[in-house]
Amino acid sequence: MKVDGTSYRSIWRSADGLAAEIIDQTRLPHAFVTCRLESVDDAAHAIKAMLVRGAPLIGATAAYGICLAMYDDASDQSLRAAYNALIVTRPTAINLRWALDEMVAVVSQLPPHCRTQAAWRRAAELCDEDVAINSAIGDHGLEVIRSIWARKGQPDRLDILTHCNAGWLATVDWGTALAPIYKAHDAGIPIHVWVDETRPRNQGAHLTAWELNGHGVPHTVIVDNVGGHLMQRGMVDLCITGTDRTTKRGDVCNKIGTYLKALAADDNSVPFYVALPSPTIDWNLESGADVPIEERDANEVVRVSGRTDAGEILDVTITPEGSAAANYAFDVTPARLVTGLICERGVCEASTEGIAGLFPEKFEY
Amino acid sequence: MKVDGTSYRSIWRSADGLAAEIIDQTRLPHAFVTCRLESVDDAAHAIKAMLVRGAPLIGATAAYGICLAMYDDASDQSLRAAYNALIVTRPTAINLRWALDEMVAVVSQLPPHCRTQAAWRRAAELCDEDVAINSAIGDHGLEVIRSIWARKGQPDRLDILTHCNAGWLATVDWGTALAPIYKAHDAGIPIHVWVDETRPRNQGAHLTAWELNGHGVPHTVIVDNVGGHLMQRGMVDLCITGTDRTTKRGDVCNKIGTYLKALAADDNSVPFYVALPSPTIDWNLESGADVPIEERDANEVVRVSGRTDAGEILDVTITPEGSAAANYAFDVTPARLVTGLICERGVCEASTEGIAGLFPEKFEY
Repeated sequence: MKVDGTSYRSIWRSADGLAAEIIDQTRLPHAFVTCRLESVDDAAHAIKAMLVRGAPLIGATAAYGICLAMYDDASDQSLRAAYNALIVTRPTAINLRWALDEMVAVVSQLPPHCRTQAAWRRAAELCDEDVAINSAIGDHGLEVIRSIWARKGQPDRLDILTHCNAGWLATVDWGTALAPIYKAHDAGIPIHVWVDETRPRNQGAHLTAWELNGHGVPHTVIVDNVGGHLMQRGMVDLCITGTDRTTKRGDVCNKIGTYLKALAADDNSVPFYVALPSPTIDWNLESGADVPIEERDANEVVRVSGRTDAGEILDVTITPEGSAAANYAFDVTPARLVTGLICERGVCEASTEGIAGLFPEKFEY
Repeated sequence: MKVDGTSYRSIWRSADGLAAEIIDQTRLPHAFVTCRLESVDDAAHAIKAMLVRGAPLIGATAAYGICLAMYDDASDQSLRAAYNALIVTRPTAINLRWALDEMVAVVSQLPPHCRTQAAWRRAAELCDEDVAINSAIGDHGLEVIRSIWARKGQPDRLDILTHCNAGWLATVDWGTALAPIYKAHDAGIPIHVWVDETRPRNQGAHLTAWELNGHGVPHTVIVDNVGGHLMQRGMVDLCITGTDRTTKRGDVCNKIGTYLKALAADDNSVPFYVALPSPTIDWNLESGADVPIEERDANEVVRVSGRTDAGEILDVTITPEGSAAANYAFDVTPARLVTGLICERGVCEASTEGIAGLFPEKFEY
């Protein structure tokens, strides 16, 4: 997508071929800064410190991490070490394991001197596949939005609520939850987006708002507490979120707070859609109750990042000294609260049957 | 309650008898500052700018506003002007109107030269009544907590989730939702409180955490998105919140986001109690859908207040330039999601029948 008129992806191989480059998302929306990842440690750090985030982009960054490790030392031992360093960076996102397994499958069967080039090629393919998947999600989601807009009599404003950032910054391009929104906006449907700020890291206020600004999509930032009220008063036509991991029966593990919005949508008969590339489906897991929930540093809760009136970016502490904080990063929305899953192959019910209809090959025993 | 070992109420008449004094709650938890209200304009400003907040304390401050107006000019015209200036400061809290009506009822029937003294007397009575009411709420709520603790086999830790600040800072003393918590803690029940930070103004992180710290009640601050996850994983034994206005049938209008927690409590069979003094019941209103919801300045959403590492208190902006924000301050939790109302006269079902059982005189026609 465009940044100040220039097309960007969220990750790309550097022009000199020796590094991967990313946008440092911890600096957004206040500053647009790119940075080079030159080693597997750089890649692991970028994931862990959330310079990159979003399940598909985490996967892509891990894939480039394998390339950088192979460039440095193409031995089996180096491959194992890189895998082990990258797999522990974030515990919840399923794409991370998926992307690493894809890379290892290609690289490990080759002799060491062929590995680096093959790794770069496969990482680039994974990125291109992600872009194609997200574009397809956008096309299918556009039809969902178009039909809701038509059913409501093509009002002058169609209100979509989203939580966290599942935009192009969370993927390689397009995004998952935002891909349908970009395509609907481009198709002339008068979208207005309610952007949950998404505490504690404010990815909605920081990243989704920044993305929508860049693309010219009308939007309003709200605190995470507001969505239920808006739905009660008929001010939300549908919700679309992303997901970090979806189980085989359609339970959705996504950014903390998603479950609360799904409850409110259910209570007010607002359609609640989840947009996802199939690599985020965990084919080994039935129930969302079994997804490990990452607990992150409490400092993310007690400190808030922003810019001062003088333009300086800094953190302020909001809690009194002596008060502890806890920071659970994800929650699980049970399938019963999800109206539909928007996948690259189409839209299905959030159920084993629905998912099996789109991905029958995964259910053959 | 105690602040650094000294007992305070949240509002009191100054020693010289010429002013009301309050704690400037916009400075908490970073600084403890009291200030004098010397005119009705000072009182109106303190309410509007939220130096004081919380339905009962808003009522008490408005009552002192009438005293200050009468001291300045005890005419009918001055009384009307003071009433009109104070009634518009906050649209949602029902106590504001109730307290003003109480004051006018006493003052207006007296000749001007008797009004000032009568106003001070009545305002002091209203404050003492509020303290007695909250203490009684605490006693009844303690029995609710004690019985849940007993039913669970007296575990080593009983987890209570609360939203916003309904503590002693929101009332004249004790608090509403926190009164049972203080009394249970004092009674030796091992309470641990999950404190919703309560965006946008962070009254949980700023005020509830500060209060609980002061009284030594174990607690953990969480973002507003977390409560549903905690309830899904069995980490919340009950919820207690306050309310700004409760309808005759038990719909609860409280700080934005309360509804989302009530939905999660219902979905996970967690008891959800609302603590309220009867002056917050709107005897003229059946449905919560008819409560006007205050929309406040969007700056409360886009700017976050905290202290820098250097100890300075300042605001930082979290959204990108060009993104709008909206700020709805309250939502309505329907009675069906409320397990019980903890009032000064006892605990009742959130229904017309339940409320009529405790307050039969309000239902005689």
